[in-house]
Amino acid sequence: MTEHVVGIDYGGTSTKLLLAAAGVREAVPMAQAVVPTPRGGDALEELATHVEAFVAGRPVRGAAVTVAGIVDDRGVVLTSSNLPWLAGVAIGDVLRTRLGFAVVPVHDGRAAARAEAVLGAGRGHEDTYVVALGTGVGSAHVVRGVVEPGAHNAAGEIGHISQDEQGRPCSCGQRGCLETFIGGAHLARRWREVVAASGSASPGELDALTAQDLVAAARAGHPAATAILAEATTALARGLLGMLATVDPGRVVVGGGLGQAPDVILEPAVARLRARATFHQVPPIVPATLGPWAGAWGAALTADEVGSA
Amino acid sequence: MTEHVVGIDYGGTSTKLLLAAAGVREAVPMAQAVVPTPRGGDALEELATHVEAFVAGRPVRGAAVTVAGIVDDRGVVLTSSNLPWLAGVAIGDVLRTRLGFAVVPVHDGRAAARAEAVLGAGRGHEDTYVVALGTGVGSAHVVRGVVEPGAHNAAGEIGHISQDEQGRPCSCGQRGCLETFIGGAHLARRWREVVAASGSASPGELDALTAQDLVAAARAGHPAATAILAEATTALARGLLGMLATVDPGRVVVGGGLGQAPDVILEPAVARLRARATFHQVPPIVPATLGPWAGAWGAALTADEVGSA
Ligand SMILES: [Zn+2]
Ligand SMILES: [Zn+2]
Repeated sequence: MTEHVVGIDYGGTSTKLLLAAAGVREAVPMAQAVVPTPRGGDALEELATHVEAFVAGRPVRGAAVTVAGIVDDRGVVLTSSNLPWLAGVAIGDVLRTRLGFAVVPVHDGRAAARAEAVLGAGRGHEDTYVVALGTGVGSAHVVRGVVEPGAHNAAGEIGHISQDEQGRPCSCGQRGCLETFIGGAHLARRWREVVAASGSASPGELDALTAQDLVAAARAGHPAATAILAEATTALARGLLGMLATVDPGRVVVGGGLGQAPDVILEPAVARLRARATFHQVPPIVPATLGPWAGAWGAALTADEVGSA
Repeated sequence: MTEHVVGIDYGGTSTKLLLAAAGVREAVPMAQAVVPTPRGGDALEELATHVEAFVAGRPVRGAAVTVAGIVDDRGVVLTSSNLPWLAGVAIGDVLRTRLGFAVVPVHDGRAAARAEAVLGAGRGHEDTYVVALGTGVGSAHVVRGVVEPGAHNAAGEIGHISQDEQGRPCSCGQRGCLETFIGGAHLARRWREVVAASGSASPGELDALTAQDLVAAARAGHPAATAILAEATTALARGLLGMLATVDPGRVVVGGGLGQAPDVILEPAVARLRARATFHQVPPIVPATLGPWAGAWGAALTADEVGSA
């Protein structure tokens, strides 16, 4: 009977469950489910119940679970920005005890990047730099299927390279980082300011605005939205050019929520990059293909290794 | 009898010859010599004569020669900026035929970076980022003794990341690159402008001014020299911070001619970097130790591998 691996993408609001045949070579799922993220003190008991029902008795070789935060060498979550109840918890051990198969924690952004490189838009290529344009900006260099972690597990912070020391304050403590130009949280805030100044929205409507509303407005030709995205894609072009000069990857894959708006984000950014490139080796720069399932696929890849070790 | 390896650093004006016992583990030379760089059509014949005299009959396992330029897979020099007579020449084959032992070409900057990482200020550390502050700015990430070349042999161009798109034109075609702030050629030109404006030097004296004269003037407290270096070290701090965010190396080694002025270059740059760092993992940032012999040591390391293969 086919053995399975389970990828669990434990997100801030919803959790994705993915079942695949062990020996994952392409992104073809055997089953997928999305459940509301279990929260608070009983979260892992509840998560295990979801996983158990999802697996439905099929033989499981191993599982992995993404964690948005820092996990120490023993598998204990030190801090997690959006899952604070996990702090101090050996998440893998707890789930393993309850489920009866190995469950290992994996960094959410790294898992997604690795999946895009191995199974997604980087599939078949040895050397891929993956950029995730989400609420923030993350990135990872994936070489022969392995994420380059850096000497202190801190590589890939191209979102936090300042382009303007007098620019807007960033969550990292610097000013004018790439993320202040193209991070979803920053774009949403700026769009709220534009809409608020127009006086056409109630406070409740303003609060609900996201970067996707800005994208929609730009597509509809709204001048202020277009101007914000022009600045954002210029900053992305500059950030990517600096990364190309430093790393020289064979391929660049751009994903995340804003990566899924290639017409107003990636394509203009690549055009601006090409207009600025001189000595640079500009590799193919392509959109991600796994979409919101990249993290779960990355967890499945990790589960595959653990189970076969 | 001890077998030897020969490192040849074929520079623009002088050529360094280095003899070491095979199995190089530390930067302890058995012999060193500096000869004027042979030029023109008979250059390699003349270089071989120098090497032969230098080796003086001792048994040689292999040699390597640095080339400032691009060498193809067959060992043919495609272009060399400062040794144009090498274009189209299979330099290793020519020297091997004449000398009777293997001679392989190696990229000069990469050789020097590797030597600093393996035998110099990075010795004993697995993960070192080497920055060379010379006429231009070069860099290389050396992991477990191997230079990360990039997918197109183009990694490490942190000297050509623009910090100011309206800045001074750079040889690479961009404006405001790090190299326009701290490259020796740019610093020398700016210092010539300052001295020319003061009217205190003849045209001949102006032409002879170098970046080292600017360094000396800054050490003597000259305000314009101090201002130029303040701008230069700020740019270096910003460039290194961006590299740290992207690569996260375990150690940074700064060499090259201007790396040998740590009091007015490296130390102020590191202070400015620390003042700006927020989330960054700032590793030890230390001066190079091999000085002008780094390239020859890198060639010796390459010769060692070739000879034992
Ligand atoms: Zn930042
Ligand atoms: Zn440049």
